[in-house]
Amino acid sequence: MTVTLISSASKEVRIGYDLPFVIIGERINPTGRKILAEEMKQGDYSRVESDALAQVAAGAQMLDVNAGIPLADEPAILAEAIRVVQAATDVPLSIDSSIVAALEAGLSVYEGKALVNSVTGEEERLEQVLPLVAQHGAAVVAISNDETGISEDPDVRFEVAKKIVERAADYGIPRCDVVVDPLVMPIGAINSSGKQVMHLVRRLREELKVNTTCGASNVSFGLPNRNGINSAFLTMAIAAGMTSAITSPLHAEVMQAVLGANVMMGNDPHCANWIRKYREPAAEGEEPGRGRRSRRRRNI
Amino acid sequence: MTVTLISSASKEVRIGYDLPFVIIGERINPTGRKILAEEMKQGDYSRVESDALAQVAAGAQMLDVNAGIPLADEPAILAEAIRVVQAATDVPLSIDSSIVAALEAGLSVYEGKALVNSVTGEEERLEQVLPLVAQHGAAVVAISNDETGISEDPDVRFEVAKKIVERAADYGIPRCDVVVDPLVMPIGAINSSGKQVMHLVRRLREELKVNTTCGASNVSFGLPNRNGINSAFLTMAIAAGMTSAITSPLHAEVMQAVLGANVMMGNDPHCANWIRKYREPAAEGEEPGRGRRSRRRRNI
Repeated sequence: MTVTLISSASKEVRIGYDLPFVIIGERINPTGRKILAEEMKQGDYSRVESDALAQVAAGAQMLDVNAGIPLADEPAILAEAIRVVQAATDVPLSIDSSIVAALEAGLSVYEGKALVNSVTGEEERLEQVLPLVAQHGAAVVAISNDETGISEDPDVRFEVAKKIVERAADYGIPRCDVVVDPLVMPIGAINSSGKQVMHLVRRLREELKVNTTCGASNVSFGLPNRNGINSAFLTMAIAAGMTSAITSPLHAEVMQAVLGANVMMGNDPHCANWIRKYREPAAEGEEPGRGRRSRRRRNI
Repeated sequence: MTVTLISSASKEVRIGYDLPFVIIGERINPTGRKILAEEMKQGDYSRVESDALAQVAAGAQMLDVNAGIPLADEPAILAEAIRVVQAATDVPLSIDSSIVAALEAGLSVYEGKALVNSVTGEEERLEQVLPLVAQHGAAVVAISNDETGISEDPDVRFEVAKKIVERAADYGIPRCDVVVDPLVMPIGAINSSGKQVMHLVRRLREELKVNTTCGASNVSFGLPNRNGINSAFLTMAIAAGMTSAITSPLHAEVMQAVLGANVMMGNDPHCANWIRKYREPAAEGEEPGRGRRSRRRRNI
């Protein structure tokens, strides 16, 4: 079994086929969050800290940290955000940037073994990112596109992933430290993208023997009731062998889908996590349906 | 592709791999429903009728009708219930009994091509039920247990299903008219039962090339938040190739899982059903989470 070990100064997270699915919280990302972007730019990391705490409380085992703000000093901001998050929580982090200098700055302040997010199959990225990953003994997210873009053919994306795994090995990075993102297309635009991803995840697991991750919410782009689609996607992806996702743990419905999938895959021994979470009526507001039902019961 | 065609006097339902998943409403069943049992025994079918209408309104494409009441004239009651349901709705029916005379009485009044629920791999049942199915040109649910009980080994259950398909062929019943129930064990008791069923469903589809159904709610027996587990189970079973289930369409969460699974499998062209269902804010009470959110938004 391929196990990817990621750590903070005091905590380890293991990503693997026969282990509970790993949720990497996606919220600390200024893309599309104007207020957060402005605050981070001004050196105010209070929302970064509260987002970190809220996601861990909601069940994220890891957090993704991104500081992609136009016209800002991304390396410095990413490094500071990582310092803040590591001071506030003990979960391992994914260091997320498209700028190599920012990944480098993040890695230089990170305590533990980080997940670097990400490298693609593009030659220039491979040559810049992989030495950095190797030097810091980190793991890396490998996105299955290259200079030719994102192929609609999942078997072409498999070949890109395979190339990245081979190139990583040349730098001394073992395949257990390459977590492949198969790339999930919006199913509203490409109706076959669900089946494509399941086919690709199964090949990545059975043939390339790597762990996998994805930005899960992309699948529902443009559709109503996105959490419903995201839940169906994650459940099926886990059945196909997906082992982690970068998504928001703050949606109770999505978290329930992941916990239910852990039960169905036999990765929640004695259903202990499920029973602990759902045995008692939920706290007010956390799960409206259940709360309402139990109130009604008391009134009768 | 194997397609199972079931019909009423005026409507056809097709069960198949590349078609939307078929929900067979389970509610018309007096087991564990004292009031319904008493009413049916007294000749009052008003609840049978309203249960039929409610399930069709909630999205059931077929209805299961069961009249298993201790010390009652089950053949007569089942026949009458079928008459009532066929008068009230136009969906095809599954005629459900463990008593052969009741199946016979149900078939004799049924208009269309019914689904007979069920035959097992037990010699006596095969010899009694299959001629009846052949005589009426019906389809049949084949439950994968035999005289030795229900094996925990899915490959043994596969062999039982194979035997039933072969015996059905001897009676002139084609494999497209045998819908196999792989038997779903409570996952709270047998933690591996989810993986077992997925393995078995995949073999039934790829090797035996039959359609499948199951009593979906059995999987969550004994656990809290049963709809959450049932949703995870159905989503994964559909990904593995399950093509129908006998379950309650009255749980919005379970129906959402099935509709989401149809989208993910590419069996909801242009996501049209999904968009139609979830485009507008849900009616009050139907989906508490969504309703509450939209109210809050209006208040801001």
